[in-house]
Amino acid sequence: MSVTAPQGFRAAGVSAGLKQNGGRDVALVVNEGPSRAAAGVFTRNRVKAAPVLWSEQVLKGGRLRAVVLNSAGANACTGPDGFADTHATAERVAALLADSPGEVAVCSTGLIGTRLDMDRLLPGVEAAAAELSRGDGGLAAADAIRTTDTVAKIAFRQGDGYMLGGMAKGAGMLAPSLATMLCVVTTDADLPAEALDRALRAATGATLERLDADGCMSTNDTVLLMASGATGVTPDEAAFTELLADLCADLTRQLLVDAEGASKAIAIEVVGAASEADAVTVGRTVARNNLLKCAIHGEDPNWGRVLSAVGTTDAVFEPDELNVAINGIWVCRNGSFGDDRDKVDLRPRDVTITVDLAAGPHSATVWTTDLTADYVHENSAYSS
Amino acid sequence: MSVTAPQGFRAAGVSAGLKQNGGRDVALVVNEGPSRAAAGVFTRNRVKAAPVLWSEQVLKGGRLRAVVLNSAGANACTGPDGFADTHATAERVAALLADSPGEVAVCSTGLIGTRLDMDRLLPGVEAAAAELSRGDGGLAAADAIRTTDTVAKIAFRQGDGYMLGGMAKGAGMLAPSLATMLCVVTTDADLPAEALDRALRAATGATLERLDADGCMSTNDTVLLMASGATGVTPDEAAFTELLADLCADLTRQLLVDAEGASKAIAIEVVGAASEADAVTVGRTVARNNLLKCAIHGEDPNWGRVLSAVGTTDAVFEPDELNVAINGIWVCRNGSFGDDRDKVDLRPRDVTITVDLAAGPHSATVWTTDLTADYVHENSAYSS
Repeated sequence: MSVTAPQGFRAAGVSAGLKQNGGRDVALVVNEGPSRAAAGVFTRNRVKAAPVLWSEQVLKGGRLRAVVLNSAGANACTGPDGFADTHATAERVAALLADSPGEVAVCSTGLIGTRLDMDRLLPGVEAAAAELSRGDGGLAAADAIRTTDTVAKIAFRQGDGYMLGGMAKGAGMLAPSLATMLCVVTTDADLPAEALDRALRAATGATLERLDADGCMSTNDTVLLMASGATGVTPDEAAFTELLADLCADLTRQLLVDAEGASKAIAIEVVGAASEADAVTVGRTVARNNLLKCAIHGEDPNWGRVLSAVGTTDAVFEPDELNVAINGIWVCRNGSFGDDRDKVDLRPRDVTITVDLAAGPHSATVWTTDLTADYVHENSAYSS
Repeated sequence: MSVTAPQGFRAAGVSAGLKQNGGRDVALVVNEGPSRAAAGVFTRNRVKAAPVLWSEQVLKGGRLRAVVLNSAGANACTGPDGFADTHATAERVAALLADSPGEVAVCSTGLIGTRLDMDRLLPGVEAAAAELSRGDGGLAAADAIRTTDTVAKIAFRQGDGYMLGGMAKGAGMLAPSLATMLCVVTTDADLPAEALDRALRAATGATLERLDADGCMSTNDTVLLMASGATGVTPDEAAFTELLADLCADLTRQLLVDAEGASKAIAIEVVGAASEADAVTVGRTVARNNLLKCAIHGEDPNWGRVLSAVGTTDAVFEPDELNVAINGIWVCRNGSFGDDRDKVDLRPRDVTITVDLAAGPHSATVWTTDLTADYVHENSAYSS
């Protein structure tokens, strides 16, 4: 179902021959209306891929007829020619739909620094347009955007008279990311672009934005929200935002457990922070600590590495008031050793590290993975 | 020779039984004067080990009679009792030398969060004091401070009528560090503490401070400079600083090539920066990019990962003006692909990545290592 779960959307995923293994590599999602309201959030990397530069401009209009996505090539760091390739791709989609390229977003993912093979991509776009459907199209599209993803990521939610559907790829986040994170969410609710934008920023801010697999920020990250308004239902914005956040959390979890080489899904839960920003900063810093990520991989409750990471931040805390629990055991109390670390059971895949800053009422959770030899192997041979 | 190369120093390294393998684990370096002028730089981590808290206070006096160092225990996150252990260690050294504990620095390295076994450490300090010598003592001390170091790191330099000697351990830097970096440098030149402080900050700022193995900042990093004045020679401060920087660069190189699990020694050379601070920021950010570190391990000249790292900084640059060379081949020009990446030979251990920001005349080099399965293995099992 994925992006075609809501009414008013058709999708397709085809093989254009970009992927060496012959797998699907071009996806198309088309909004049949009556509304075309849309919103997007993009990587904060200053080195932006051509499709990001293009789609950011498109989204300023607050309307999307379609989004075309390809795997097997990021079209980043490809200069003016690469931008022309993105433009030509949007033009081809627009021609096929007899519509304006100014309402066609483009997403790409794959290796940075090589041109896309347009002689394969454009026929692929045509094939995708010919296969658009509500039935199998959503799943085929979710399959086509996979790179190192071992499974397609899809989710849908039923609201009060409307639906949300989504697909995602990658194992990272908007910024930063492990590999490019692309996500398209559709709805048949009827909401203006401004409301969609608010809802999308709120929903992703606490979910996809807080997935930090390896601290590396992609040049291509994009999350799009498209509304067809096909149900004619205009939901309460708060309820819509909550449902959207729930769907984004679902996709975040799917990305987390499929992250490259990961054997643990780690939640860094920061509590007692003086502000939410402090909590996020501490969570992200702990999530990026390679030594800690190795320790969790080795099922070693090495809380000293948590404290040494917290100590590098400018968050409000006193070193001798910090508390740390690993899977519920408070192994560090008041900045020193606490309960017996041998009580910590790190065998389950899910690991929760709780950091209590003892400085206020705010909290936040950041999700990450362990650092494994498989991660090293997978990323040592990506482009060769 | 190491720290006993200059006149006026004696040293020792003994086994106190802290290391499970029976290796040396306590070192003592004593300044016999006539001067006791000294300077120190310490970790910027806010979670500081007890010996750092102690030694920072001691160095405020600008004088050091001795420094006692132990491996096999960081004495970090050990609370007031841990601080008392450090204090007692300094007191024991002072008693053995019939001197003041206020001029005895303490350094520790090893696992965070466990108390030191004082019943072994204090007799070890006594044994070290009994073995102090100019002959073998310097090398024994350098051996005693090793943790995961596979070799002892020592260096000395001959100045104009005076000498510098040094020992170091770890594979990181002052802040951040892979494991704790401890370094003691001695000289028989006669310089006041203020001059030593200026020289030490200048020398380490461009050497040990720019070694960034894995972005992790230790709770214990310490670099000490002790002057005996035994030659009576007061060197030109600029010449002294240059010689000290040369010695620190030598030790930096030794730490780099012995970093945990590393198979490549990578220099990130940032040129064309608007400021030295920009150059360091970009160098450090590139050095910490796990995806790039994996690529170099796989001998893959994946320059896109360099650009995506540069793009996360706030340094002055335009994305379409960035140039990147890997081992001398300009694989990225003007933010897009440049010379043929197949020309890059990544088989040598030494790798140089040059990033040209095309924004000014400033430059800086940061050194790092590749990310390997060996690193993961070594750090998955550190405390267990």
